[in-house]
Amino acid sequence: MKEEQEIKEIEKLFDRLFPINRSITGSGLRKSLAILNEYLPLERFSVKTGTKVLNWTIPEEWRIKEAWLRGPDGEKILDFKDHNLHLLNYSTAIDKNLELEELKEHLHTIASLPDAIPYVTSYYKKRWGFCLPYNKYKDLKEGQYHAYIDSELVEGELNYGHAILPGESDQEILISTYICHPSMANNELSGPLVATFLYNRLRKWKNRRFTYRFVFVPETIGAIAYLAKFGKELVERVYSGMVLTCIGGETNLNYKLSRDENNPIDNIVKHLFTNNDPEGSIRPFTPIYGSDERHYCSPGFNLPVGQMARLVYGYPEYHTSADNRDLISIESLYESVNEVEKVLRALELDGYYLNQFPYGEIKLDQHGLYPDINTRGIDNHFEGKLVRNRNQVNQILTILNYSDAKYSLREIAEKFNQLTRCNISLLELEEMVEILKEKGLLKGPYSKEEAKKI
Amino acid sequence: MKEEQEIKEIEKLFDRLFPINRSITGSGLRKSLAILNEYLPLERFSVKTGTKVLNWTIPEEWRIKEAWLRGPDGEKILDFKDHNLHLLNYSTAIDKNLELEELKEHLHTIASLPDAIPYVTSYYKKRWGFCLPYNKYKDLKEGQYHAYIDSELVEGELNYGHAILPGESDQEILISTYICHPSMANNELSGPLVATFLYNRLRKWKNRRFTYRFVFVPETIGAIAYLAKFGKELVERVYSGMVLTCIGGETNLNYKLSRDENNPIDNIVKHLFTNNDPEGSIRPFTPIYGSDERHYCSPGFNLPVGQMARLVYGYPEYHTSADNRDLISIESLYESVNEVEKVLRALELDGYYLNQFPYGEIKLDQHGLYPDINTRGIDNHFEGKLVRNRNQVNQILTILNYSDAKYSLREIAEKFNQLTRCNISLLELEEMVEILKEKGLLKGPYSKEEAKKI
Amino acid sequence: MKEEQEIKEIEKLFDRLFPINRSITGSGLRKSLAILNEYLPLERFSVKTGTKVLNWTIPEEWRIKEAWLRGPDGEKILDFKDHNLHLLNYSTAIDKNLELEELKEHLHTIASLPDAIPYVTSYYKKRWGFCLPYNKYKDLKEGQYHAYIDSELVEGELNYGHAILPGESDQEILISTYICHPSMANNELSGPLVATFLYNRLRKWKNRRFTYRFVFVPETIGAIAYLAKFGKELVERVYSGMVLTCIGGETNLNYKLSRDENNPIDNIVKHLFTNNDPEGSIRPFTPIYGSDERHYCSPGFNLPVGQMARLVYGYPEYHTSADNRDLISIESLYESVNEVEKVLRALELDGYYLNQFPYGEIKLDQHGLYPDINTRGIDNHFEGKLVRNRNQVNQILTILNYSDAKYSLREIAEKFNQLTRCNISLLELEEMVEILKEKGLLKGPYSKEEAKKI
Repeated sequence: MKEEQEIKEIEKLFDRLFPINRSITGSGLRKSLAILNEYLPLERFSVKTGTKVLNWTIPEEWRIKEAWLRGPDGEKILDFKDHNLHLLNYSTAIDKNLELEELKEHLHTIASLPDAIPYVTSYYKKRWGFCLPYNKYKDLKEGQYHAYIDSELVEGELNYGHAILPGESDQEILISTYICHPSMANNELSGPLVATFLYNRLRKWKNRRFTYRFVFVPETIGAIAYLAKFGKELVERVYSGMVLTCIGGETNLNYKLSRDENNPIDNIVKHLFTNNDPEGSIRPFTPIYGSDERHYCSPGFNLPVGQMARLVYGYPEYHTSADNRDLISIESLYESVNEVEKVLRALELDGYYLNQFPYGEIKLDQHGLYPDINTRGIDNHFEGKLVRNRNQVNQILTILNYSDAKYSLREIAEKFNQLTRCNISLLELEEMVEILKEKGLLKGPYSKEEAKKI
Repeated sequence: MKEEQEIKEIEKLFDRLFPINRSITGSGLRKSLAILNEYLPLERFSVKTGTKVLNWTIPEEWRIKEAWLRGPDGEKILDFKDHNLHLLNYSTAIDKNLELEELKEHLHTIASLPDAIPYVTSYYKKRWGFCLPYNKYKDLKEGQYHAYIDSELVEGELNYGHAILPGESDQEILISTYICHPSMANNELSGPLVATFLYNRLRKWKNRRFTYRFVFVPETIGAIAYLAKFGKELVERVYSGMVLTCIGGETNLNYKLSRDENNPIDNIVKHLFTNNDPEGSIRPFTPIYGSDERHYCSPGFNLPVGQMARLVYGYPEYHTSADNRDLISIESLYESVNEVEKVLRALELDGYYLNQFPYGEIKLDQHGLYPDINTRGIDNHFEGKLVRNRNQVNQILTILNYSDAKYSLREIAEKFNQLTRCNISLLELEEMVEILKEKGLLKGPYSKEEAKKI
Repeated sequence: MKEEQEIKEIEKLFDRLFPINRSITGSGLRKSLAILNEYLPLERFSVKTGTKVLNWTIPEEWRIKEAWLRGPDGEKILDFKDHNLHLLNYSTAIDKNLELEELKEHLHTIASLPDAIPYVTSYYKKRWGFCLPYNKYKDLKEGQYHAYIDSELVEGELNYGHAILPGESDQEILISTYICHPSMANNELSGPLVATFLYNRLRKWKNRRFTYRFVFVPETIGAIAYLAKFGKELVERVYSGMVLTCIGGETNLNYKLSRDENNPIDNIVKHLFTNNDPEGSIRPFTPIYGSDERHYCSPGFNLPVGQMARLVYGYPEYHTSADNRDLISIESLYESVNEVEKVLRALELDGYYLNQFPYGEIKLDQHGLYPDINTRGIDNHFEGKLVRNRNQVNQILTILNYSDAKYSLREIAEKFNQLTRCNISLLELEEMVEILKEKGLLKGPYSKEEAKKI
């Protein structure tokens, strides 16, 4: 798929999903999963209201038909039809005339972003309420208002889905994102969109060393429900993973380390960012703020799962109607697909390789990997060789010397950088690795355990 | 006991002990132990002259009745009655007329502190001698002097004592100090006084997780004798300990690390000092200088015992008559009691806690530990909650995530500081730890081994 | 042997070896080994052409009788008789008239060092060629030249030798150097000369804790052949080792770490250089450049072998006729013998010592190792003692406290330096170690494993 075409596809899906009124349960959530299912084969699951999931309980399902607020003059101050965020998410029903002062206890606004509608939720405490821009709020006149919300909380279900892309190994890479936020762009259509198009990239890879699991859940309670069902399986299988969230915008990637902070995924991302391949920055793990990695990384599971973002939560427009398509750009989502794919390619390439002739240096000239004369002008004698220059010879010598089940390819790239003052990522060693494999001089990648056994 | 009253009690004991002529053996030592026994239940022990203790032998007991020096004019140059330090400690007897030049070989003085009497001892080599201020020494006239010392070295005994304060565990905290120095304040009435009043603080604690062993010995040979008898027991039981010495004066606490430099006591004190709770500084372990930790930390025992001081040996007045009550202050001893008690409280609180619901984040709002609405103004929604602010929620999230038998509470406090750029000690986490324990969400503290077994 | 005499001996051997036309095979190599055999008992080995050695094959033996180049006027442009480097090493035979343009493909020169003859080899690809100074090359006139080389590549053998100097233990120190370079001084007569005179130093030591193995091989293929025969034995026995190369010149020693970078040899050299005993600097291990340590440190063998140099390869005169006796100096070779001997003495002295009375501090005054009075002027009371000053007491206290099978003497020296802000190497502790051993207070050195068992 060409770049432009893929960007258009992302845009099309964005525009279909954006207007839907999503929550942690309900028809908007189900509709969103159905649309995603057109792009990747989502296995969908439902959990009934009242079901115990870990330390939590599945709440009632929210159904909403209509919601508006009329002012003293009878004019409509706001209408849920105009913007999903006007209504407090999970609002209970109301049909009441009330004075401005009483009404204000049910109005939510942000003075610092006076034209934006805030995003407010109250999933577990019954409340009703509206959200509106501060500039509208501050001009509300005294008098009697009519608040009307036609909603229900009913015995229903919570929905989520996943798609598994098998690879050579049962070891899995988990990509998890959430689909409960209505009508906001960075937080959070970016995650589901990037995950969806990433899936389609990986589907086309010639080989997949790992199995890939793409998870689409409502945030928090969905992840809890997912872990209640699949947690044990994840503990057995997940080799690396990341939560995708807030992954749009013009800034560089920003990765939050997994709980142990030195899992393969952490080391690979640090390595790539250190060598600007791609550019990015690193945050420590914290249980204080974040998304579903807080559950994947709770001490009982302690999965090797980080979180990949771009414009990280906490930006001014966060959790408001100003988090829209203008804030990010469809191109930034495309860029995220590219860059996360690069991280996954690096995970596939990394591992432990084995020099097949580890006793003494291999006689490289007989494989076309070294000049056949020794002179101070040796750098001019690469004609007719498989390697084009001294730098590639140096890569080969470094790869062969350290391919002994003790150093991973990432560590070999770091050794190489130290020794030569270069700044390459392991991805740049791929060409020489392939040549050495073709020549029968190298095998891999293996896991450390496999490599030690051989 | 109120602050002022406790300070007065310390002062009273100081004034009783200061004038006594102590040495590593003898009646002054026994009298001092008897006085301390009025404050804490001292089990007292004696070891006979000639007894082999480890690599050493208990020396003869020193008895001294009278000692003076008369000048050429018959006037008394100095008299042991006026100051204990005038006599070389363990001096043999003499009754002799002799010229100034010959006498000078037996006189000890310090030119750099010309008004002070130096403290000189010769326990293991038979000598006689006097000590006097340099200003007096330099004015001594030529002529014949009369040196008179009525002392004896006899078959006797060496005395020491200890007091054990039991706790829930057999694991012990050792507090050791020495009581052989006569008529000096910082070095060394400070140690025995702080130990004595510390004992009485701990006696009143509601719970003691550890058993506390308070040891009062003459320095070096007493510690050697103590280790000869109790060393094996200490190796089995001591979890942490410290020698208290030079622990008066207006400076901050100053801790010398134990030999391995990363025992629990070392890590706790570093942690507390790093977070100024209390203020203090750290010295490395050294076998070159110091007090009885040199024996506790000899390679055969290698006990996890540091040394806590304040005005550390090496100050100008050290080992002279100028090391008196004016140099330190009774208030500084009271302060030491407070601060060492804080160290011990931190040792009790530290350990490994276990999150009782480690799978997924606990649903904190249902325990009153989190707001029940999600909005950007969430920091205003703590009304009616058990936690008062976001900082306490952050403490709770950090404690729960890391309470997994891998991180001690001290390490959790350090994680918290890293993540929030705060600067708190583990003592400040105690309130949230107690709330979580009451709610049944947390158990502990355990030792690492216990925590791993559960 | 006095300094001057030893320098003269080195000079004499230098002058005998320099003119010989050496290569990786052939009569020059055999002659050089025969001369070295006059200085140390070399066991000599030969390997037949065509023999498989690890990943390599022993090449044909090179025999050369005559070689010259005549110009258009019939004059001799260059003659192999004048300088060994004029002929491409391993050149095949030729007897041909040819135009300058065609000839130039067979001429080697270095524009940046216009008066020097470059050293060029082509061992494994058949080529003929001459080497000459650029200043001569650039003035070559158009016209017909006569190239004459009377050489042969024949079924023959490759030769090398080693000398073993036995010690108390089977554990070995490997000293390896190479003898294939013709008529160059630093690279490489320095290595064989230093190795030879070092052997004779070690021969005279009173004790040798380790066995010493001196290896003289042609570079690369010789080391490969040596490893093919002795590799397994080396893996079992080598405790430490180094390749000696480029070890002349006025600069300081320069050590390349072994592959693991923290073997005993690495730690000792870092320690000595850190404390300027002798001065020197450290390079990381690299498989990219270097000498035979690349084979000793190939991943299959991974021997604890570094490389010691002085004027490290890469200097302007490297691999040219300008690398001659003027470039280095015979004195610098003598200095290298001294300094490498010091490294070996440090290896012998290092190890784990055991305090024979580890319980409590030893009563040092009864051994004459401490003053018998305690006073602030104690530093004046060393008369009649075995120790001369406080610094020596401090060394003793440090040695005794850390001699517990956990700290090597090198680590004890480093502890001592930290604690006293001194800057001594472990060699300076030797005097106190000897005193303590004589007094029965200390035993050692042991290996860590031995020390732990005792």
